[in-house]
Parts: sequence; structure tokens; C-alpha cells
Amino acid sequence: MAVDLPFYTEEFHGPFQLHGLGDFELEEGGVLPDLQLAVSTQGKLNAARDNCILVPTWYSGTHQIMEQVYIGPDRVLNPDEYFIVCINQIGNGLSSSPHNVDGAHAGPNFPKVRIGDDVRAQEQLLREVFGVEQLALVVGGSMGAQQTWEWAVRFPDKVLRAAPIAGTARNTHHDFLYTQSLMDAITSDPGWNGGTYASPAEVAEGLRLHGRLAGVMGWSTEWYKQECWRRVGDFPTFDDFTRDFTHGYHEVLDPNSLLAMGWKWQHADVGRNAGGSLGAALGRIKAKVYAMPISEDMFFPPRDIADEIALVPDGEMRVINSIDGHMGLIATDPGYLPQIELHLRELLAQEV
Amino acid sequence: MAVDLPFYTEEFHGPFQLHGLGDFELEEGGVLPDLQLAVSTQGKLNAARDNCILVPTWYSGTHQIMEQVYIGPDRVLNPDEYFIVCINQIGNGLSSSPHNVDGAHAGPNFPKVRIGDDVRAQEQLLREVFGVEQLALVVGGSMGAQQTWEWAVRFPDKVLRAAPIAGTARNTHHDFLYTQSLMDAITSDPGWNGGTYASPAEVAEGLRLHGRLAGVMGWSTEWYKQECWRRVGDFPTFDDFTRDFTHGYHEVLDPNSLLAMGWKWQHADVGRNAGGSLGAALGRIKAKVYAMPISEDMFFPPRDIADEIALVPDGEMRVINSIDGHMGLIATDPGYLPQIELHLRELLAQEV
Repeated sequence: MAVDLPFYTEEFHGPFQLHGLGDFELEEGGVLPDLQLAVSTQGKLNAARDNCILVPTWYSGTHQIMEQVYIGPDRVLNPDEYFIVCINQIGNGLSSSPHNVDGAHAGPNFPKVRIGDDVRAQEQLLREVFGVEQLALVVGGSMGAQQTWEWAVRFPDKVLRAAPIAGTARNTHHDFLYTQSLMDAITSDPGWNGGTYASPAEVAEGLRLHGRLAGVMGWSTEWYKQECWRRVGDFPTFDDFTRDFTHGYHEVLDPNSLLAMGWKWQHADVGRNAGGSLGAALGRIKAKVYAMPISEDMFFPPRDIADEIALVPDGEMRVINSIDGHMGLIATDPGYLPQIELHLRELLAQEV
Repeated sequence: MAVDLPFYTEEFHGPFQLHGLGDFELEEGGVLPDLQLAVSTQGKLNAARDNCILVPTWYSGTHQIMEQVYIGPDRVLNPDEYFIVCINQIGNGLSSSPHNVDGAHAGPNFPKVRIGDDVRAQEQLLREVFGVEQLALVVGGSMGAQQTWEWAVRFPDKVLRAAPIAGTARNTHHDFLYTQSLMDAITSDPGWNGGTYASPAEVAEGLRLHGRLAGVMGWSTEWYKQECWRRVGDFPTFDDFTRDFTHGYHEVLDPNSLLAMGWKWQHADVGRNAGGSLGAALGRIKAKVYAMPISEDMFFPPRDIADEIALVPDGEMRVINSIDGHMGLIATDPGYLPQIELHLRELLAQEV
């Protein structure tokens, strides 16, 4: 099966390196042969090997958006000070994904991958490739937050600080249903054809519906009322915004990649590390944790995250105020990043 | 075209009377021949003809749910005191709708109907059939609220009191996009087939997705977290609730009916009565208005309604607190109806 996917290249996402981890056993069973993780690093590991920050990626995003928004010499995540490793999640189009693996695992046959698989693979990569045994900080948003929670639970001695932004440790029924609707938007398009399309263009209707659903839940009602799409880019009218951003962003994505990540998102649950007990799992965390929900997030609302951070021995809520809701993650709200930076600076200054 | 729709009968919705209004000119152009409105009345019109309460219906609902929840001898909407007229909105399956009109207007060719068409037809019906020239109260939820707002703007001398529950006077971009996704859920099902299906069963996948989207936005995230589906009915597990309620409720509905109402919902805007000015339109209202958004409503949030009620000369906000969100309208939250009753009792006691 050949799928035409020019989008998942360095041309569109900036430079990255592929690191092979060999055949990788998956929690749902089976093996992903020759697992490749797409990695981007900035800064240098110091002699003490204690300045490494791990940044996992979110649904449909790659290392690029994390670098553009969160990392830089003028940021708290400063490559002059830290060795910052962005690792693309499995299935996101750059790491091993439905469109770039061979044979039995390609396309719709890509195996079920869990957040725990990503975190185990990332731990192996950091250890084997970079010799990193402890992380000064793990910070990620949305599915990146799911990975951040999982890191803190699964490797309590390796994570000194953790900052899950706009994401829960265990997915909720509501979020499961929302994610399901995102996936349904794709699979209900006859062009998806059981995952055997030749190009995302054949699934364009499904991808556009997927984009509209992401828009309905991604921004807040207040954001729409205040016509904040005007500050996302040069969109003279709401129809322009819908066509060029809501639809445009999603049309180029690989449907099978979104489905692989969607299933993973739906099934995120750190409780799996403690016989199903969320309390027992979060109670294991040794890291200092700042949970940073976004005030107007419609599917990872602060209330859901407040219940979880209360179960973390050394955890604090740091709510980020933004009417941009979940999409605030891409820093369309000029007030967003200063809040994130404030909390990350304070967290990194904490002795642990 | 014969569509098998046993659902839209008195067997399922209780008794109603059909009243013909003749050929009815539509705001979007064209004529709906022999418009029939399905009406249910309770109580008696008094000699002064000043005890009439109009109750319009919401998306996918009929007079039945309004009667079950809001009307009765133990309610403020008491048939012993008031002449209560429930009028099913055009397109809802009981009044003239895609499946029950003939020939050129049937099925997918059902014309575009606006909230203003419903309100003009209702005014004609009340006047011609019941001799009612003034309403003690108009009260409706969701699309029923859209009709309530339109009544107060369009017929300011005929509406003494108005209580729009969980609905805006002008639809928002966010709500437009949400409604679009509900409609897309149906039309993306190949079984919809341009509206020429023989039975809703052929569109079952689309209707189930429609139901899941209604569930994602209809209840609040807090409602899901607290597993409040357990108090909606006898559902041992969340999967049971999804199958029997979220899917089950929607599977029997007529896709073309939902699309007719969906378009109407999307395009609701009282500003059309005042050259596009929301302020000028709402400024015309003479009724005493209590706007009653539901605190956790995800698509008709209190903030959107607060902006509108501020433009009404004699308007007040009365927020209904419920984690059931928009679906609170069906009174699954035992704390919902007492709040509604309190405000309606006070509103009806107001001299106007």
C-alpha cells in the first residue's frame, strides 16, 4: 500500500532524527518491528546529565509546534540551559506510524498502541541514545500531558518535576465519547474505505468534519463570541477561518494516523499501573507536579484535573486562564504563554 | 417516496390535533402547501381570553416531553388555571415534515423553514383556531427558546411574558458549527443517500453518531464524571446507557426531519426583524422576560444569554443551576424543575 503523504516530512515539520529501538513489545500484545522514534533535541546535556527536559507531543501535533511555542533562548525551556528532547509520539506520522511501516502493520493494520508504550519507548531511547537516567522536567500538553502523567507514575525515580498541561491522568467517559466522535468523523467517510485509501484527499469530507468537531470543542464559546479567530491569522471572515484553518489544518493529516492516536488518547489511564486504582497510581508519584489545566477547556476541564492532582503527594493546581480553551495550547491567546512560563519557571526553581 | 416512520404517531407521542393553515408562504421563499400544525391543548380558555400560555417545542422533541416535564395540575403551568397550547414546530415529524408532505416538498426536498415561519404560523393558528390575541406567557427550551425570543420580538403587543430556557435569540458561530456537525453526522452516512433512504434504519450509523455528538455537548463533563447517567434510567453500565439512551433515542428519528430542524436552529436570529441589529430587535420587546440559561450548558452558555437579556428593556437573568447541562431540559436532575417552577411562578405573578 502506498499512501501519498508529503506532509510528514522535514520540509513541513523541520529537522528530526530517527532512532531505532528494535522490535518493540506492545502492552496490547504483539510487536511493532523496528520501532522508530522521531526526535528533535535542542541544547546540550551537561556533565552531570541532570539538565534534560522531555517534551512529548499531542494529538496531530509534532515536535515542531512544541519548539515554536514552548522552546527557545527567550523561554523558560531554554536550550542554553537545558538539554531539551522532543519525542514524537508513536503513530503521529513522523515516528513509526500507519503510513511508514511495512507489510503486516501498515495502514489500517497498525497495532493498538498505548500511552504506556510511548513512555516505555521514550525511557529506553533517553537511556540508550542519550544516557539520560533522570529528567529535570517532563512537560507536555493534551496527549503530551497524558504521557507526562504516565511518566511520573511509571518511573517515579526518574522524573523530578512534571507539568501536565490541559490533560488528565485517566481519560473520562465524556472525553472518550468526544474522541470517539473524532474517530467516527473519519471512519464514516466512505472514502476512508476501511483504511485503504490512497490519499487523505479521498477522506477529505471526513477530515473536514473531524476539523469542525475539533473546532466545536477546541475553542470556547466565549472565544467564538468575541471572534477571536481574527487573532489566529489573516482571516477576513469566519468562513475564511473555517476553510483555511478549521478545515485546512486537518485536510492534510493521515486518517489512519489520527485513528491510531485517537484510540491511544481514549484509553489513557495511569491506573493500569496500579491494578486499576487511580489513587494508588498517582500516590506513587515522587515528582513535584504542577497540573496546568486551561480554564475554558471543554474536554479536559480544570475540575477533572483538580480531582487528580489532589491524589498526588506533591502536586499543585496552576490553572491557566484563557478563553481559547484547549486550543490555547498553540498560544493563540497572547496571555497564555506568560502564565505557562511563570509556572514552569517556578517549578524548575523548586529543589527536589 | 414512502418512508416507514412508526415513531411519529399518537401511539408514541400521545394525542394531538392537526390544524391546517392552508398554503403558507415561507421567509426563504416558496410556499408550503396545506401547512399542518400538530397541536395539543390542556385547560380551557377563559372568557377574557387572557389565560393562554404557548409552549413551542425543541429539536427532536414534541409536545409530549413538554407536557410530561412542564405541565400538570401540580405544576405552575397548571391546566386548571391556564389554557396551555403546545405547538409542534414545523419539520419535527408531527407538524408538516419531510416524511408527511406530498410530492415536490417531500423528503430531501422539504423547503428551508425559519424560526420566523413557525412563529407566524403559530400566531395565525392561535388567532384563527382559538381566538387568542394575547399570550400570558410564551415558554420554551432550546429551539423552543429560539421561538420564544422570536415571538417577543415579532409580536411585542401579543406577548406579556416570555421565558426562553436554555436558548439564545441569535445563534452563535460556535453553535452554528456544533449544529453543522450534528447534520454532518447524518449526511456523511452513505445510507442517507441524499435523503432518499427508505427507513431511518438505513441511516442507523449516522443517527448513532448524531446521538453521540448530542451526548458530548448535551451533558456536562461534570455530569459524566459523577456518572449521573445512573439516574437517567435503569442503566447498569455506561455502555448500556450509550446503547439504550444515547443511541436508542436517536435511532428512531427521521434524518430529514432532523436536517430540517437543524438548518432552522443554525439560522435563528431575531435581528432579521430589525435590519440585522440584535439590539434594535431585542429593544422592541414589551414582554417581561426571564431568560433562564442552564449553568453548565455547553452550547447555549449563560454568558451568551447574558449579553442578550441585557438588551431587553424589561429582562432578567435567572440562571438554572444544573450539572446536567443542556439536557437538564428533560429534568433528569431532580433539582432542575423546582428552580424553573420558582421563576415561572414569580414571572406569572408579575403585573404587566
